[in-house]
Amino acid sequence: MSNAIASAWKRIEACAKPTLGELFSARRDGGEGAGEPAGSDRVAMLTGRIEWGSADDGTSGAILFDWSKTHLDTALLSAFEDLAEARGFASKREALLAGDIVNVTEGRSATHTAQRGTGADADVEEAAALHQRMKLLVEAIHGGALGEIKHLIHVGIGGSALGPAMAINALARDLALVDVHVVSNIDGVALEDAIEACDPATTLIAVASKTFTTIETMTNAESALKWLADNGVADPSGRVVALTASPEKAVEWGVDETRVLPFPESVGGRYSLWSSIGFPVALGVGWDDFSAMLAGAQAVDEHFASTDGRDNLPLRAAFADRYYARVRGCETRAVFAYDERLALLPSYLQQLEMESNGKLVTADGKPVDEPTAPITWGGVGTDAQHAVFQLLHQGSHLVPIDFIASIAPGDALDPAHHRILLMNCFAQGAALMAGDKGSEPARSYPGDRPSATMLCDDIDAATLGALIAFHEHRTFSNAVLMGINPFDQFGVELGKAIARKIEKGGESFDASTEALLDAAGLA
Amino acid sequence: MSNAIASAWKRIEACAKPTLGELFSARRDGGEGAGEPAGSDRVAMLTGRIEWGSADDGTSGAILFDWSKTHLDTALLSAFEDLAEARGFASKREALLAGDIVNVTEGRSATHTAQRGTGADADVEEAAALHQRMKLLVEAIHGGALGEIKHLIHVGIGGSALGPAMAINALARDLALVDVHVVSNIDGVALEDAIEACDPATTLIAVASKTFTTIETMTNAESALKWLADNGVADPSGRVVALTASPEKAVEWGVDETRVLPFPESVGGRYSLWSSIGFPVALGVGWDDFSAMLAGAQAVDEHFASTDGRDNLPLRAAFADRYYARVRGCETRAVFAYDERLALLPSYLQQLEMESNGKLVTADGKPVDEPTAPITWGGVGTDAQHAVFQLLHQGSHLVPIDFIASIAPGDALDPAHHRILLMNCFAQGAALMAGDKGSEPARSYPGDRPSATMLCDDIDAATLGALIAFHEHRTFSNAVLMGINPFDQFGVELGKAIARKIEKGGESFDASTEALLDAAGLA
Repeated sequence: MSNAIASAWKRIEACAKPTLGELFSARRDGGEGAGEPAGSDRVAMLTGRIEWGSADDGTSGAILFDWSKTHLDTALLSAFEDLAEARGFASKREALLAGDIVNVTEGRSATHTAQRGTGADADVEEAAALHQRMKLLVEAIHGGALGEIKHLIHVGIGGSALGPAMAINALARDLALVDVHVVSNIDGVALEDAIEACDPATTLIAVASKTFTTIETMTNAESALKWLADNGVADPSGRVVALTASPEKAVEWGVDETRVLPFPESVGGRYSLWSSIGFPVALGVGWDDFSAMLAGAQAVDEHFASTDGRDNLPLRAAFADRYYARVRGCETRAVFAYDERLALLPSYLQQLEMESNGKLVTADGKPVDEPTAPITWGGVGTDAQHAVFQLLHQGSHLVPIDFIASIAPGDALDPAHHRILLMNCFAQGAALMAGDKGSEPARSYPGDRPSATMLCDDIDAATLGALIAFHEHRTFSNAVLMGINPFDQFGVELGKAIARKIEKGGESFDASTEALLDAAGLA
Repeated sequence: MSNAIASAWKRIEACAKPTLGELFSARRDGGEGAGEPAGSDRVAMLTGRIEWGSADDGTSGAILFDWSKTHLDTALLSAFEDLAEARGFASKREALLAGDIVNVTEGRSATHTAQRGTGADADVEEAAALHQRMKLLVEAIHGGALGEIKHLIHVGIGGSALGPAMAINALARDLALVDVHVVSNIDGVALEDAIEACDPATTLIAVASKTFTTIETMTNAESALKWLADNGVADPSGRVVALTASPEKAVEWGVDETRVLPFPESVGGRYSLWSSIGFPVALGVGWDDFSAMLAGAQAVDEHFASTDGRDNLPLRAAFADRYYARVRGCETRAVFAYDERLALLPSYLQQLEMESNGKLVTADGKPVDEPTAPITWGGVGTDAQHAVFQLLHQGSHLVPIDFIASIAPGDALDPAHHRILLMNCFAQGAALMAGDKGSEPARSYPGDRPSATMLCDDIDAATLGALIAFHEHRTFSNAVLMGINPFDQFGVELGKAIARKIEKGGESFDASTEALLDAAGLA
């Protein structure tokens, strides 16, 4: 096994390094590259589509994945397929989807795909039963069972916040059944912002915490309840819905069992939008949209489960990711959503990728011998063109870029808005690749800078689900290619432990930390 | 000169690499480090304060800059001082502040400091006169000269948007005189969001563009005027204020001269918050706060102008920046604001640093021989602890981090919120440095990961001005240490040119771009 991995990497590292321009023309110095598909053949080789739904009932949609402006070529694809095989990709994928213990350090399965119907029968049935319970509560609230509810303050952090915030921002623009505010930061300013926008008489509080002990979330929840109580709500805890994998803790904390929506322990925080953590989405935009989001994700699950080698689009993306990280030494990867509706997607992907794969040891506890997850960063186009693209075009660091755009506009203004948006998106990919000698050194662009493009038919609930699931499987594929466990996150524990020690008092720390605590009046 | 630069770098690169723990204890293997200040002496050596105002009139404030948890030591500080000297730091700083042509490729001075009173007399006088004109207009609008104005839609992108958006977000929480919405993206969804929140009868439009030709801004401005016209406003262009370095273009476009607020050509876009681009700040939070922001920045200008070597805090920060970029090979630097009010600061700094210093050639047109600006990324604490800190603690990439926090809380909730916020901020810096062997490989933290902390007395207008000015001078100092021009941004031109070619039609592009245009119906 280990020999096969090393030999695959040896082949990858020995591959020629033609420029993107050479790959598109398939002409290289020294006659190399003969037989390599060029031009539109290259685009066909490295572009794929994932489709779902049916045109008959208006549920159809698709995403086109164009990886042709990366440096992947037939030699690299073939060598990376060998690496995937050497790493046991097929069996690891099967283990994930069968509900086996893939999170080995915590002795758990990772059953997020079961939430959308892909997994072991028992996991899929459990998810369906929990979804049914959630659907009934959502519909009861829409029906007035808790009185008139106009606002939801959703309290949660990390995996309990980023998904709901992104989905609400993407989907609740045209009409929101309930006005949702996501509060995550322990900084009281965050809760105060939400409070100012809500009427206590018609506000529901969702408390989202896998363990129901997260200090930020419990502190914010207490303050939110106090606000309700201080503003004439007779039974504040009657206004709370709990979203948790520790339902008994929620009941202990005072939430009535009928308003506790559990999710399985085996659903990781950053993979939990599909579970009851998606409650604010279902309440805000309706069950049909929440359900469409699951369906879009399932379409990607099916593609991922049933497609092999380079044709498996999340795996193909991981080939490029690993190539840039290891062979080209890129410490980062950037994601630019050319769509205001996806403004929060880069932050969501940041957590998904960096928390999953920002590791130092393999799944069996050995030190890794290669760079692990790059830093995911990015923003929204066209804004970012006027802020960070200078470095992308002329900086000294190579940054592989993902562009995400939608053919259908999200606005009803002059079509010029969306046309210019898309043309700019495509122009950036073209410019990064082509470069230009320019008239003087400061106006010269080296080019040969890679990008991938995900072009969606539209941004709706199903598309959002598909985009997220694609990235979940891309992240998993990267982890398999590195041999690491993407489902634990022990790295966050040490900081929390030291914060608790500071809070408790009586211990001393380094001289800088002591001085800072002193300056802030906390010593 | 060039020899002195190479020799300074030789010294820097030859410096020993003690861990942070060794630096704090000053005990190293082999007896090295004798005489190196340790513990609280080290903290004193690498901590400085910038203060302003007077306690008598309530204008006082300060920021503490603690760089002790970086790897800077006496040997590095001394070698970097030599580098600064070899690079002509003092004379370049003087040239900047004297209004000389420091933006050599564009043949311009860079007079942003003159906007707050530090610069050549003529520049300072011009800025004061333009500010006076802006103040009169702001006060006239507050006084009802344009009818009742409750909302401002500020249309601008990049440098014309990021500063206003950040300042409004930081300062307009408690009371806003006018409700400000910043619209930047060409995606019509952005303008639609603003429109939905505003009443056309009481909305003013600010159009901010240095050249008054930026396609995003002019398209959004046209659509905003159309919205006013479609909703019963008799004279939409009577509701426009133009903020520009091309006043004649604004008049041509239809803005009455009395509502054109010019700023000098020599103020760069990403340095323009201090000029009339700050109009939405002055209108939103009042002239006094805008003026306090300038005063806070000026306090930093004075420190920067009058302090030499390692005691110059922006220069000291640049020493660490260059050390990590070049000697430790860090491609990124992360900024975490532990304060919801500074949520947009990381994005602001991203533009400031990456657009200024993401370059490939020196000011005299030679290829650079070192990595230029790292990728600036980050977010808000404590949120980020639950999203990306896994990689910072246990990932394979070294990421130097800046923490920014405020002693005074921004909220009036239970003091536990702010106390926990600050304790977490300090705990992260302590944990990154200390590390921990842990009970098993997956729970092991290598430590020795550097961070710097900026601890503000409070987040008010003066502090915000000081923070930004600190980073402007840090960026300039980095540029001087590399010998590059931080004031041009030709890197963004190629993408714009290709977008124009696509729009115009009749040209062909690479096969991928053609296929994408075709798929989107734009071929």
